[in-house]
Amino acid sequence: MQARRVFLQQLALGLGLSSMADYSFAADPHTSDVPVDRPLRVALLGLGGYANIVAKGMQECKMAKITGLISGTPSKIDTWKKKYDIPDKNTYSYENIEDIRNNSEIDLVYVITPNSLHHKFVLEVAKTGKHIICEKPLADNAQQAREMIEACKKAGVRLYVGYRLHFEPHTQEVIRMREAGEFGKIMHVNNYMGFTIGDPTQWRLKKALAGGGAMMDVGVYSLNAARYCTGEEPIWVTAQESKTDPVKFKEVDETITFQLGFPSGIIANCGCTYNFNHSERLHLMGSKGWAEMVPAFGYGPIKGKTHLGPINQPSVNHQAYQMDGIAACILQNKPDPNVTGEEGLKDMIVVDAVYESIRKGGQKIMINS
Amino acid sequence: MQARRVFLQQLALGLGLSSMADYSFAADPHTSDVPVDRPLRVALLGLGGYANIVAKGMQECKMAKITGLISGTPSKIDTWKKKYDIPDKNTYSYENIEDIRNNSEIDLVYVITPNSLHHKFVLEVAKTGKHIICEKPLADNAQQAREMIEACKKAGVRLYVGYRLHFEPHTQEVIRMREAGEFGKIMHVNNYMGFTIGDPTQWRLKKALAGGGAMMDVGVYSLNAARYCTGEEPIWVTAQESKTDPVKFKEVDETITFQLGFPSGIIANCGCTYNFNHSERLHLMGSKGWAEMVPAFGYGPIKGKTHLGPINQPSVNHQAYQMDGIAACILQNKPDPNVTGEEGLKDMIVVDAVYESIRKGGQKIMINS
Repeated sequence: MQARRVFLQQLALGLGLSSMADYSFAADPHTSDVPVDRPLRVALLGLGGYANIVAKGMQECKMAKITGLISGTPSKIDTWKKKYDIPDKNTYSYENIEDIRNNSEIDLVYVITPNSLHHKFVLEVAKTGKHIICEKPLADNAQQAREMIEACKKAGVRLYVGYRLHFEPHTQEVIRMREAGEFGKIMHVNNYMGFTIGDPTQWRLKKALAGGGAMMDVGVYSLNAARYCTGEEPIWVTAQESKTDPVKFKEVDETITFQLGFPSGIIANCGCTYNFNHSERLHLMGSKGWAEMVPAFGYGPIKGKTHLGPINQPSVNHQAYQMDGIAACILQNKPDPNVTGEEGLKDMIVVDAVYESIRKGGQKIMINS
Repeated sequence: MQARRVFLQQLALGLGLSSMADYSFAADPHTSDVPVDRPLRVALLGLGGYANIVAKGMQECKMAKITGLISGTPSKIDTWKKKYDIPDKNTYSYENIEDIRNNSEIDLVYVITPNSLHHKFVLEVAKTGKHIICEKPLADNAQQAREMIEACKKAGVRLYVGYRLHFEPHTQEVIRMREAGEFGKIMHVNNYMGFTIGDPTQWRLKKALAGGGAMMDVGVYSLNAARYCTGEEPIWVTAQESKTDPVKFKEVDETITFQLGFPSGIIANCGCTYNFNHSERLHLMGSKGWAEMVPAFGYGPIKGKTHLGPINQPSVNHQAYQMDGIAACILQNKPDPNVTGEEGLKDMIVVDAVYESIRKGGQKIMINS
């Protein structure tokens, strides 16, 4: 993570550029890596709401480009291929994904379907030999995540999870400060992510498509952040659920609070919801300092302060930074940041434990990972 | 609570005064209450650190005055009687508390000893026929609290608990807004109280004197606030404990997180600690608005904001306001605010459940109160 960030800063500096957004497909002057003479060519699989946000962000990319489209809805392909100038030969339905194997204009497929389809599509795409980014949550549960990682390993392709915040400068700065010991010993974390969900007919409220509710979708932010706030892996999990609207949230969880116990004794006390606003925050308390980010997890602008004052970092397009960041890993063979399939699996193990603790009345679930 | 606040505002207005701090021992022009022609005469029992803060605050009181001293340490009596001009006949040791019965210059005894002595001293003072304020937490557990309430009832004296924040204007404003529906439906609460405790030899770290650790001392703030943020009584409790320093916190709890489930489905997710700073906050999230107070529970200045902007209320001396507020209840027979022994008991029932949940590995403890 840290190495990656320093590299990008050095790259920008070396090129005399003021920010990452200015760099171009030049060889990295500071390393002996393969020169980057072309962008990472990305096909988007699933052309829903978030795919639109990714595609828009990618227009700012310097190292990644949309070159393919995969959708179950022909009318979406029509609209998108015109908008993003994609040739017909690079468009696919869900019936002919295996043909992507022969397409030399696609390096990577970004799976952006409803959660419960991640497993199925990652297994299918892995067989094509293309690298994969899978949107978060990686899967419905840890078992699926393990199968996805195994399939990608077997196929010799990389698997990333869409944890865009690991490319976000405020988040990176908090991680840097933590690693540098600037907060002292981390003592406690209190993270929340959530919002009041709209349209009651959307897929996020259907168990069969979403896998779960607030915990799967937004709780993963609080959880992943608890891990990057502490730098430790949880050893126990407790969780509690509440529903104030059992009709709207008939199939999936509305609000969950969960606690992660870490080896050093830190507790991360987290929450997530689909039914109220103004909850979103990251709050890290250490023996020598603290960090508070509000908002901490949305698409930006992210804002934060520490015991030293405001976190002065640029507001960036998260999706562009994520895609350029992953492009740099693949094209320049940089060390993987904390957005690998294994990172996604670590969170799914905790998500499983959260649901298990709720089923068992709040009981402490030990994690043996 | 609300009636009381409005009364004090009207009283101040009626007297042409700009704030509560300006009112004097005048008859209330808006009611038919007993005119107040003398202050509430208070004896302090236990002359430690917090008694000093109370005594200092009471120098600003308009309706309450220190007239007596009770201590187990003769040298403290000597120092205090000179400082506060208390005659020898109004000073007592722990051996002759029963003699207070015959002292017409003492209306009320404020018990400010280490927690685990509250029960013993409240029972003793009740027999003297004097009213009582007992510092929080009311007792070591709910059973003691019930015995204290029963003893005061039997003796015909009033029992209050030192919940000073119920007299604090920012806190009162949040409660007023909640009662007026200005936050809409309350959806979630996330309260923390704590600090890094100093001197490792102090009584707060001794189980026999403190009854417990962070939960007893500062967790009660998060807990009491969860009740005034929601206006509901919890029906279940879960809790988790961590110790990062098992030596310093050998006898008492260092950090506890706890969750309260309310009948409407609200969860209050709370925390308390003796081992880190920058945690203190009250955070209330409703369907139409929110409130956030940082700091929320210390001696002031309390600061807060809501969806409408900053909470514009005066910074006051909490101890002076508490003592004047309770004096008004007793001398003018005003309705009791939410600082009665019964209020203290409600929190002790939850404290018991918190410790029980921890003993049972986070298990949900149902409350039948």
